[in-house]
Amino acid sequence: MSAQTINTIFSGIIPPMVTPLLSDNLTLDVNGAKNLVEHLIAGGVHGIFILGTTGESTSLSYKTREQLIVESCKAVNGRVPVFVGITDTSIEESIHLAIIAKKAGAAAVVAAPPYYYGLGQEELYKYYWSLADQLTLPLFLYNMPSHTKINIDVKTVVRLSEHSNIIGLKDSSANAVYFQSLVYLLKAKENFSLLVGPEEITAETVLMGGNGGVNGGANLFPKLYVALYHAAIAKDFERIEELQTLVMEISTKIYTVGSYGSSYLKGLKGALAALGIINANIAAPFTTFDEKEMVKVIANIKEIEIKVNSAL
Amino acid sequence: MSAQTINTIFSGIIPPMVTPLLSDNLTLDVNGAKNLVEHLIAGGVHGIFILGTTGESTSLSYKTREQLIVESCKAVNGRVPVFVGITDTSIEESIHLAIIAKKAGAAAVVAAPPYYYGLGQEELYKYYWSLADQLTLPLFLYNMPSHTKINIDVKTVVRLSEHSNIIGLKDSSANAVYFQSLVYLLKAKENFSLLVGPEEITAETVLMGGNGGVNGGANLFPKLYVALYHAAIAKDFERIEELQTLVMEISTKIYTVGSYGSSYLKGLKGALAALGIINANIAAPFTTFDEKEMVKVIANIKEIEIKVNSAL
Amino acid sequence: MSAQTINTIFSGIIPPMVTPLLSDNLTLDVNGAKNLVEHLIAGGVHGIFILGTTGESTSLSYKTREQLIVESCKAVNGRVPVFVGITDTSIEESIHLAIIAKKAGAAAVVAAPPYYYGLGQEELYKYYWSLADQLTLPLFLYNMPSHTKINIDVKTVVRLSEHSNIIGLKDSSANAVYFQSLVYLLKAKENFSLLVGPEEITAETVLMGGNGGVNGGANLFPKLYVALYHAAIAKDFERIEELQTLVMEISTKIYTVGSYGSSYLKGLKGALAALGIINANIAAPFTTFDEKEMVKVIANIKEIEIKVNSAL
Amino acid sequence: MSAQTINTIFSGIIPPMVTPLLSDNLTLDVNGAKNLVEHLIAGGVHGIFILGTTGESTSLSYKTREQLIVESCKAVNGRVPVFVGITDTSIEESIHLAIIAKKAGAAAVVAAPPYYYGLGQEELYKYYWSLADQLTLPLFLYNMPSHTKINIDVKTVVRLSEHSNIIGLKDSSANAVYFQSLVYLLKAKENFSLLVGPEEITAETVLMGGNGGVNGGANLFPKLYVALYHAAIAKDFERIEELQTLVMEISTKIYTVGSYGSSYLKGLKGALAALGIINANIAAPFTTFDEKEMVKVIANIKEIEIKVNSAL
Repeated sequence: MSAQTINTIFSGIIPPMVTPLLSDNLTLDVNGAKNLVEHLIAGGVHGIFILGTTGESTSLSYKTREQLIVESCKAVNGRVPVFVGITDTSIEESIHLAIIAKKAGAAAVVAAPPYYYGLGQEELYKYYWSLADQLTLPLFLYNMPSHTKINIDVKTVVRLSEHSNIIGLKDSSANAVYFQSLVYLLKAKENFSLLVGPEEITAETVLMGGNGGVNGGANLFPKLYVALYHAAIAKDFERIEELQTLVMEISTKIYTVGSYGSSYLKGLKGALAALGIINANIAAPFTTFDEKEMVKVIANIKEIEIKVNSAL
Repeated sequence: MSAQTINTIFSGIIPPMVTPLLSDNLTLDVNGAKNLVEHLIAGGVHGIFILGTTGESTSLSYKTREQLIVESCKAVNGRVPVFVGITDTSIEESIHLAIIAKKAGAAAVVAAPPYYYGLGQEELYKYYWSLADQLTLPLFLYNMPSHTKINIDVKTVVRLSEHSNIIGLKDSSANAVYFQSLVYLLKAKENFSLLVGPEEITAETVLMGGNGGVNGGANLFPKLYVALYHAAIAKDFERIEELQTLVMEISTKIYTVGSYGSSYLKGLKGALAALGIINANIAAPFTTFDEKEMVKVIANIKEIEIKVNSAL
Repeated sequence: MSAQTINTIFSGIIPPMVTPLLSDNLTLDVNGAKNLVEHLIAGGVHGIFILGTTGESTSLSYKTREQLIVESCKAVNGRVPVFVGITDTSIEESIHLAIIAKKAGAAAVVAAPPYYYGLGQEELYKYYWSLADQLTLPLFLYNMPSHTKINIDVKTVVRLSEHSNIIGLKDSSANAVYFQSLVYLLKAKENFSLLVGPEEITAETVLMGGNGGVNGGANLFPKLYVALYHAAIAKDFERIEELQTLVMEISTKIYTVGSYGSSYLKGLKGALAALGIINANIAAPFTTFDEKEMVKVIANIKEIEIKVNSAL
Repeated sequence: MSAQTINTIFSGIIPPMVTPLLSDNLTLDVNGAKNLVEHLIAGGVHGIFILGTTGESTSLSYKTREQLIVESCKAVNGRVPVFVGITDTSIEESIHLAIIAKKAGAAAVVAAPPYYYGLGQEELYKYYWSLADQLTLPLFLYNMPSHTKINIDVKTVVRLSEHSNIIGLKDSSANAVYFQSLVYLLKAKENFSLLVGPEEITAETVLMGGNGGVNGGANLFPKLYVALYHAAIAKDFERIEELQTLVMEISTKIYTVGSYGSSYLKGLKGALAALGIINANIAAPFTTFDEKEMVKVIANIKEIEIKVNSAL
């Protein structure tokens, strides 16, 4: 698979798949994962990204991570490319996960910066270069400063884009100046893909030259996000406005039930359970919504579901 | 002037005017300020915002701030609305500046949160409500978390939008998720204006429902930013791409000469001097570019100027 | 007054005096200020520091700040040295306040870094050096990173200690590694004074070579903090333990009533009112305790007062 | 082993042992580890803490971590208690490491908060309580906000101290107010141990009621830190001053060679190599010192070694 092919693939909506868990909050719900894969592919997504932040990668044991890689790739069975998160503080474990991913048939791997020690940009640059050297799958950078404590600076991304094995960046910083700087500076690089994490800004990002969205809400309504992506590509503003309103309704009514930063993850899994797609179990350090919060999420998502169905 | 009128006015490009200083780096360069006002108005701007972050408001003495209000309003002479920054840690001084602004004929005042003590959202809400109660000019909120240490949370903005004297928000967070949340939640509020600070994202913000940009680069080339705004309103993507490229060239080649966060301000004033618009003097705690940096800024801005002239 | 004399003076307990306000929360309570000065001097303090963070300096208008300088110096009347906070984002206003302070008879001025723009260490160094050059009173550096967004790095302090007009540092970072690094590196500089802000660590700081404490609680019970300082100088551990327990009781039972970072200031002013020393009015952006919180503070401080009186 | 016994043990100097690596920067240097264990025990340390921040735990593969637990416990062979870091983002992996530790004969485990997602205090409380419930070894909390993005708030520590399986806290925040608050609030809890990370403040911490230090520099000169601890216990200020000066010399001349936050780790391993104790290899994401930096470290540590030997 050439880098150019990859780039063509790595655009559109690539949901960061949530990880369904059994009631012990630790064990992979294999059937749930298969169902979710079918739900996503039926929704027309352009790829599936497993073991990201939304996938609770860092909360899972290595055994569970490996199992998810194998089961997901098997379930997808080549219908869309699978991208595998290998973010870790140990480069050895990252490389090991990439070997599993390669063997299972994944298309690429995705790595956020190591997130325990604070790093300088030069250290980060050397880390990524060395990692890319050691991988047999193409690598996407993953900018997630709120969780990793470090921003992959614009200059560092530009330098890393010179590595033949580094083929794109997923940016979850929500910083649109950062993203526009990369769009501008990497415009000439045809094979470098720029994807955005937060679904609230996928439309504007695509309008301004970005390649797509890795949007958590696409776990719920993959067709909605795919339709929004196509509307942005077509510059169909009437349609963008209609769909963006629904995306914002999900953002403001589902992801903000509960307190702390975990409300996004809890809301997403809670809503998936409310829609009967998978159960709501969540891994430590978080705990599943209590009943009161769940009642709220159910009410909100049911109302949104009707609107989404009517719009699509 | 009714609130509705204000809203109509508070859209488009409203440059945060830099403050020209004499060589002591303290005294207002009155002629410089007059020249800059003419330059901006000739460029077709929709308003002028004085005493913002770009205007070095907090570095100026109160006497100089008052002088700038009076001289700017006199120079503008009603041709465009003038918006006056009253950001301060002392509410008494903020109110005092607003009185001067009202008397001088300003259209509205703009206030970022008090920036010494760390505040909670409830404290911030009470502060703004109380401030708005005491002002005789309409108030714009100014979100600037990197400088004030506090984000005016989405919910706080929505609550404050209920105050009849609070008519808009300028957001300089660069966080596009934040901005889109406000666009969505305040859509129904016709008279509330949402402006964005960073020029790199004015186009996408306007495309997605924002009302305009308070863009520092408009001090240099007001016509460029006005044209970009109109292209975004018209959804003319060919033109947007052409102009956005120039805006990004300014951003990446002028604002990043020099180190630290001050490189934006130094680059902007340096480029203004290179173009012969005003001199480059800058107030403490910053110091003007050294010669080596200045040489770089001159070379870059001259090259950009040619491109801008050819595009307009 | 020679620098050596200053150093001798600038040790011991120098309370950061709270600023008593009339019921409009803006106007100086001149009688309250006089009473507080007497209370402090009767308590044996080694100096008085006005217009610090505890003194709500940045919340006060310039007129009020000037009035406080004049009235405090008059009330003190040379009995102890007065140190005046000139922290400001405008160097011109800082210098102006220092002129007032000099004229009123103050011993030294104290400045935290300018706190709006983010600065680099080199910019900070130049700022302080230039400020010190322009002052006619000796200058104390004031490290307050939680409020100013910048730490005055150890190396920067060492470089600034070379300026003949810079005579000490007040550190409110609570970072004991930072403080010990300065104690070690500046040991040879006999005339450089190292004071610590948080009262919870005055004892250990003095034990390890620090020169004293600028402790907010000394507004309440100046004798307690003076006694703790003397116990630390005498290395009387039985006494240290007895008094430290009382200081910690104030810290945990008075400064933590209420929410947010303002609980310290509200608790302190509330307790002063409960003890009948001054009223509890507080300047915007904060608001005075509500009745429920006040009831709690009154109960706690009355209980502590009995223990303090019995210990002294 | 009862909790009371543990407490008696968990005081004094417990070095956070560095992890010796072979030249691939990945594989455990088993002989190096054995030599280091002997060096530490010969120095009189009161315990050994493996797999902490200094031990590069998060950079090591699970296989290597397990190997280190087994080899270290075997080498120590019961002469001092071994404490094992189980900090991880996956609770399952933490528990698994604790099982290995228990089997190998470790005395207790140590866990910093999960460090990928941002947590609220209530979430953190529940996480630790649940973890402690599932462990068969006593648990030490480990406060390391610079790396984990969350401070274990004073109130949270107090609540967690109620769990019979939670027996202490290691604080590496350097915030002495935080530490003194815990000393005060947990004074009545005889079996709860409060240890401090940064060696620069071990002396003052012990003087004020802390139980000891988990000091990185004790890898270099264990006797120095043990002597400082005993001097603090004995309140022998002449000796404290002599030894504290040496500790500060290590801190300022070894840990600050190189840039970024990694200079501590690189300096420490570089100095250990210079002293012939172990080699300087360091795991990704860091890289070993370059030659120029190494020359500097060698010169500095040799000079310090002479002084340390003469003082002991």
